[in-house]
Amino acid sequence: MGLVSTAFSPEALLNLRYDNLGICHTRYSTSGISELQNCQPFVVDTLHGRIAVAHNGELVNAHALRKKVMRHGVGLSTSSDSELITQLLAFTPPMEELDAPDWVARIKNLMMETPTSYSLLIMYKDVIYAVRDPYGNRPLCIGRIVPISKLHSPGTGEGDTEGWVVSSESCSFQSIGAKYYREVLPGEIVQISNHGVKSLTVVPRPEGDLPAFCIFEYVYFARPDSVFEGQMVYTVRQRCGRRLAIEAPTDADVVSTVPESATPAALGYAQQSGLPYIEVLCKNRYVGRTFIQPNTRLRQLGVAKKFGALTDNFAGKRVVLIDDSIVRGNTISPIIKLLKEAGATEVHIRVASPPIRYPCYMGINIPTKEELIANKPEFKDIAGYIGADSVEYLTVEGLVSAVQEGIASQQEKEKMISSTNKSSRRVGHCTACLTGKYPVELEW
Amino acid sequence: MGLVSTAFSPEALLNLRYDNLGICHTRYSTSGISELQNCQPFVVDTLHGRIAVAHNGELVNAHALRKKVMRHGVGLSTSSDSELITQLLAFTPPMEELDAPDWVARIKNLMMETPTSYSLLIMYKDVIYAVRDPYGNRPLCIGRIVPISKLHSPGTGEGDTEGWVVSSESCSFQSIGAKYYREVLPGEIVQISNHGVKSLTVVPRPEGDLPAFCIFEYVYFARPDSVFEGQMVYTVRQRCGRRLAIEAPTDADVVSTVPESATPAALGYAQQSGLPYIEVLCKNRYVGRTFIQPNTRLRQLGVAKKFGALTDNFAGKRVVLIDDSIVRGNTISPIIKLLKEAGATEVHIRVASPPIRYPCYMGINIPTKEELIANKPEFKDIAGYIGADSVEYLTVEGLVSAVQEGIASQQEKEKMISSTNKSSRRVGHCTACLTGKYPVELEW
Amino acid sequence: MGLVSTAFSPEALLNLRYDNLGICHTRYSTSGISELQNCQPFVVDTLHGRIAVAHNGELVNAHALRKKVMRHGVGLSTSSDSELITQLLAFTPPMEELDAPDWVARIKNLMMETPTSYSLLIMYKDVIYAVRDPYGNRPLCIGRIVPISKLHSPGTGEGDTEGWVVSSESCSFQSIGAKYYREVLPGEIVQISNHGVKSLTVVPRPEGDLPAFCIFEYVYFARPDSVFEGQMVYTVRQRCGRRLAIEAPTDADVVSTVPESATPAALGYAQQSGLPYIEVLCKNRYVGRTFIQPNTRLRQLGVAKKFGALTDNFAGKRVVLIDDSIVRGNTISPIIKLLKEAGATEVHIRVASPPIRYPCYMGINIPTKEELIANKPEFKDIAGYIGADSVEYLTVEGLVSAVQEGIASQQEKEKMISSTNKSSRRVGHCTACLTGKYPVELEW
Amino acid sequence: MGLVSTAFSPEALLNLRYDNLGICHTRYSTSGISELQNCQPFVVDTLHGRIAVAHNGELVNAHALRKKVMRHGVGLSTSSDSELITQLLAFTPPMEELDAPDWVARIKNLMMETPTSYSLLIMYKDVIYAVRDPYGNRPLCIGRIVPISKLHSPGTGEGDTEGWVVSSESCSFQSIGAKYYREVLPGEIVQISNHGVKSLTVVPRPEGDLPAFCIFEYVYFARPDSVFEGQMVYTVRQRCGRRLAIEAPTDADVVSTVPESATPAALGYAQQSGLPYIEVLCKNRYVGRTFIQPNTRLRQLGVAKKFGALTDNFAGKRVVLIDDSIVRGNTISPIIKLLKEAGATEVHIRVASPPIRYPCYMGINIPTKEELIANKPEFKDIAGYIGADSVEYLTVEGLVSAVQEGIASQQEKEKMISSTNKSSRRVGHCTACLTGKYPVELEW
Repeated sequence: MGLVSTAFSPEALLNLRYDNLGICHTRYSTSGISELQNCQPFVVDTLHGRIAVAHNGELVNAHALRKKVMRHGVGLSTSSDSELITQLLAFTPPMEELDAPDWVARIKNLMMETPTSYSLLIMYKDVIYAVRDPYGNRPLCIGRIVPISKLHSPGTGEGDTEGWVVSSESCSFQSIGAKYYREVLPGEIVQISNHGVKSLTVVPRPEGDLPAFCIFEYVYFARPDSVFEGQMVYTVRQRCGRRLAIEAPTDADVVSTVPESATPAALGYAQQSGLPYIEVLCKNRYVGRTFIQPNTRLRQLGVAKKFGALTDNFAGKRVVLIDDSIVRGNTISPIIKLLKEAGATEVHIRVASPPIRYPCYMGINIPTKEELIANKPEFKDIAGYIGADSVEYLTVEGLVSAVQEGIASQQEKEKMISSTNKSSRRVGHCTACLTGKYPVELEW
Repeated sequence: MGLVSTAFSPEALLNLRYDNLGICHTRYSTSGISELQNCQPFVVDTLHGRIAVAHNGELVNAHALRKKVMRHGVGLSTSSDSELITQLLAFTPPMEELDAPDWVARIKNLMMETPTSYSLLIMYKDVIYAVRDPYGNRPLCIGRIVPISKLHSPGTGEGDTEGWVVSSESCSFQSIGAKYYREVLPGEIVQISNHGVKSLTVVPRPEGDLPAFCIFEYVYFARPDSVFEGQMVYTVRQRCGRRLAIEAPTDADVVSTVPESATPAALGYAQQSGLPYIEVLCKNRYVGRTFIQPNTRLRQLGVAKKFGALTDNFAGKRVVLIDDSIVRGNTISPIIKLLKEAGATEVHIRVASPPIRYPCYMGINIPTKEELIANKPEFKDIAGYIGADSVEYLTVEGLVSAVQEGIASQQEKEKMISSTNKSSRRVGHCTACLTGKYPVELEW
Repeated sequence: MGLVSTAFSPEALLNLRYDNLGICHTRYSTSGISELQNCQPFVVDTLHGRIAVAHNGELVNAHALRKKVMRHGVGLSTSSDSELITQLLAFTPPMEELDAPDWVARIKNLMMETPTSYSLLIMYKDVIYAVRDPYGNRPLCIGRIVPISKLHSPGTGEGDTEGWVVSSESCSFQSIGAKYYREVLPGEIVQISNHGVKSLTVVPRPEGDLPAFCIFEYVYFARPDSVFEGQMVYTVRQRCGRRLAIEAPTDADVVSTVPESATPAALGYAQQSGLPYIEVLCKNRYVGRTFIQPNTRLRQLGVAKKFGALTDNFAGKRVVLIDDSIVRGNTISPIIKLLKEAGATEVHIRVASPPIRYPCYMGINIPTKEELIANKPEFKDIAGYIGADSVEYLTVEGLVSAVQEGIASQQEKEKMISSTNKSSRRVGHCTACLTGKYPVELEW
Repeated sequence: MGLVSTAFSPEALLNLRYDNLGICHTRYSTSGISELQNCQPFVVDTLHGRIAVAHNGELVNAHALRKKVMRHGVGLSTSSDSELITQLLAFTPPMEELDAPDWVARIKNLMMETPTSYSLLIMYKDVIYAVRDPYGNRPLCIGRIVPISKLHSPGTGEGDTEGWVVSSESCSFQSIGAKYYREVLPGEIVQISNHGVKSLTVVPRPEGDLPAFCIFEYVYFARPDSVFEGQMVYTVRQRCGRRLAIEAPTDADVVSTVPESATPAALGYAQQSGLPYIEVLCKNRYVGRTFIQPNTRLRQLGVAKKFGALTDNFAGKRVVLIDDSIVRGNTISPIIKLLKEAGATEVHIRVASPPIRYPCYMGINIPTKEELIANKPEFKDIAGYIGADSVEYLTVEGLVSAVQEGIASQQEKEKMISSTNKSSRRVGHCTACLTGKYPVELEW
């Protein structure tokens, strides 16, 4: 429990039996309460040996699947999707030979049972399977560890055995000396072993369905130096800021950011609008990220201690303040108050994403509909409610095109794994939290 | 993890949702390593709701049962028998109606699958089932909580609803103000609910098999104030001491004990032999019980700090020192050395139980055969090996009759639950660790 | 904070810079609250280097001494006597040469400032001074570590350098392989260094004053295997039991003990009276000693869980129950109730020490006068109050003679350190908690 | 020990006896190892009652003062300056009446004994004294808590009793709803009590000496939203960047920052140079500040995980990277490597402060002379050593004038406390770590 650095003592790490493969998981609690027993990976002994599963996402039909598993006479000891997945994988399919488990067939069976959302790592003996759901809702990408000696005479592709890592976000590769290699495709099962990386199959979506990668990863969730679909998240956010400057121009003196996540959009807005970019707030570095705190009261208290006002930079000026998103409206309101008390003559809020109106059932911890500011009566006069002089949002169309315009040009540069998989490269994103259009029908 | 008093903070206890029933478990690790995930009770969600299982004992055929469960396609997330039992109970028997689980039938099925050893508490909604295996290998008894107001006009039997507790040892009842009521019989399933205590059935042993209650509970394991089969453990130990004085008399000046567990046997020996009883050692009260420490080195270091020699009581005298058992021979040897250095002229060891020679597969954590002193070459000259002037053990026959002579006279005083259960009251004990005769064939 | 075994991790012990001397302290909080800052030894840097002081006892004139030290312009950072003593030692006496501290003169000065009670270890560079106050109120004794190789050709006395230890109680020597050597005499300053043990001086008491070793150490506080004034504590307690049987005989069937501390007295009573000795209670080994628990409520709750009744041993019998002392009367009352509920027909309490009536200002944590049962109105009918059939105490004269009759015969056997110190071997004990006669006038 | 949020449990805070004043301290360990016993405030009982002292800074003559105190016969139990100060204050000055301590005289005496560096809070009964050394080396400022009800009809000055806080940095006021009021002047003793804030005296510097406020607070140490000498730290850093652009222009495509502390200087450089400002690195928000980590190895490992490269922003471009300071050169080198591997064609380092060459003996934890990169042979080719295409530093003159040009214009706006204190308003800064010119002679 807790951050990796506190959860694992140096002693505990030394006691790991290091071998040549392993999986781990840092859990951002969505479904299932934050309890030790829900920690991942989930490990079970099966007739054929031990399997371990790490899961990012949330099964849209988890409730029905739990019923199904329990109807087989299985008891479930946790509320986690990961245990559910291990038990589904432990089930012997009728066609399977008794002594030779066909894990790929079992994984395909699992993928038939649940459309989304999951990115999985499944470890069995000396193999790891990296799996992404057919809609590609959650990210998953592969990195390659090149030994320093090989940096100037690089290996020759997937058969190369230097070392491989799989991660939700590519930003993690740099920390351990790995290089981004490619994404796992929607529906793809990739095998990683001593023999290197091998694409086993791509399970298709229903005819006519587009991929549905979570657009909120671009807006807020991912680290800016991560790469999805061939483009850096930072660049997308900067494009959102430029587009916002076109959609919602402001008569003001300076442009600034709610640090740090809105900074690329603010710089984009400043570049497009021609207004000077300044800093109005400095972060108190001993206070953590707002979004990840599990408790409403802590979130509100935190805002007050989180920022310092750089008074002399904006006293007597009209400020355009760019934020990446407004979820509950709790955070922005005290910031505006802070700026006005410190001498800003006007504060105009420009939000580099559309209003969030709908719950996410696919792994992002968005508040309930009732808590979302965009669903409250106060939203009609949102500027008055939060104390701003004006508030404007980026449109859904603006966001989608800011995201998708970078993909087309990237596709040709990208290494394609096989011409037969072309259909999975069609472009599409899940905008359910903004539009209410979910990629699959929700079963309950 | 740890003692109850350290594992549960007062805050944690206050956060329990108190209701009118509950089960808990303090684990004495036998099979399965001492890990958080093996903690009991084990809880699973089944098709019909949540069940929780606490288990004392060790399933002799656990390995085969695990295979069987996994062959059904179930993954097992721990190495504990308790999880295995929950998964066996979660399985829907073919004859059962879909919407009405027949837990008693399921428990009977479980009892058909595994003969011994288990005492179980199974909680489901508003009912607790207390179950003892057909051989009665592990203890289980029922206590009754009588409200203070009722102490002078007691209730009228099993239909009374004042409050009931179930425990391995009756000694625990006194601590919470409960009174011993009766044992759960070998093979019996007892239901405890708001409607009181109800005996549901008694699953029989194979024709001709005797009960096999663990004789080691009398010798060492149980607390002396506990009652099994109608007799106080202390009294049995005292009888063992008397019998030992007859079987192995000594020409000495004083009788003493390795405190505290051998004291009843030492007093019995003194009474029978007519030698004066004195104390030769005082315990350092800040050092724990030898047997329960998990690590050999700690055990050995502990002996040195554990006892103080009461020099003036025995200097210049010949001492008969009674011990309850000699397992590895690590403990007694430094004690003898201590007494001789402090002035004892002779030290004769008399052991109030026979030599332990065989492993226990039924829940008592006896060392491996190789570690048992009785199986080592040195055993031929055990007195020389441990530094004693002589060593004698109680015979198996002596132990068995010391145990069983108290039962016959008790049986008529005891409340019988039904005349049809007479067969289960036949007398028999498991002496496997002493004789190698296990109550059932061991399957692996 | 906490028991030594929990306060010091193995890592912390390994990080100690082992040298050839050291002092430590396990604190039994009397004056000064139980806080980290009051932990001992107290260490200060002085003009001449670092000194460390460990103190057992309580300075009767601590308040006046604190004022005196503060009047010198010194701030005191804790409420402990140990800091006070370090600051008194740090003071340069007027006659001292600047560059050569005369620690023995400073210690003598300290002893002139405060008559009692203190046993001290003072460490400075490569010397430890062991000091006992002129009244010898608190114990202090020296043990000798003889290397195994020398056990058969022992050294030649104080000049021998094998290794020495100093402790309040001799029982601790055995745990580390040391042998009892001798007591530090009342008023003596002993120097321990690489050159062995050397008696430096004996500071006298005022003319006519007797020594005043705490008689309560014999009654309750010390471990039974410790030796004071040449006699084993256990033997004194047994003598108290014999004397009690003469002073307060009982018409009963069996004699028993409140385990474990009253057992020697109970065996003494049984031997003298001819009544059989039995056990009526067994201790729950997971519950700590009553006296040392810091909180009244915990003490009371503890009693209920502390003992199990060995019912069959005494049902239908008249029991004489020996206790070593009755302080508040909280403990004995539930025990009597327990025995009667379990079937004892009569319970007679015989206490192997006189009633405690007065506070101790010299280091024993006796409750306030108001809390002592002997000072309460209920004491007139103490038997009725605690539910016993009769209650009798040992007289003060009985206790004093039980203690002192063993000393005379021991004195000639004992190694005297010098004929000039004969006066300090006169016999006398502090009975202040029983009689109100304090060895020195109390200053406040 | 640890961050405030982990060191104080909510329970511990509730157990504080809240009164109307208090002092606390978060310790940044400089002299004295990081140990519990060195925690502040240091509290002692004196003849006149308890005093508590919290200290920011480091006494340049601590060693001589310790000797002096110990020569008085006082033992010092810690290595902290705070204890030393309490003992100096506890000393009764010769002229003082016995029953009426004159704390102000004692504080003045203390200030005569040690010239610098210290900002102190001294609490005694119902008064807090806020003290700054005559050179004003460490910061100290006063804030005022205005109750919400009074926000629109503010109080009337120092006699007002609404509430006052004292802090090293003004940035902390905002977190608790206080407003910056004024600095404590160099040499000033300010009394804070129920009667409000009162300036008692200003102890002068030796004739001719200038104030010596630490210039490194502006460069790196302080939070950018803090105000010293009437100017916001952020503004000073931005001016340093502008001056650096003049002193050391670069032929490049973009300007960027080592986030976050160099950002104001980078924006200043961009504004002055006309080059576009971009971001090249994003911070991993779960890794702490480099400077404050106590251990070299942790510092180096940390760099690798601390930043992500925003590749697409600078690939193919020539980057001017602004840093606030280069201490050891460990941090900048891997950053340059990171940027070049990610595609920067050139990386030019511009440092917004001069090279650090000398140790600080006044409270800033600067590495030893040998560890400072500016003192190593490699410094001659610093660009080559760290892998940059060029490296330039701001000059000492440039830094000093960037700091001081803002002060003159601020002085008239500022509220002066008294015309007699004019001399203390002369401008001067400690640049010892850059120039080796210490404000006072160093005594050892």
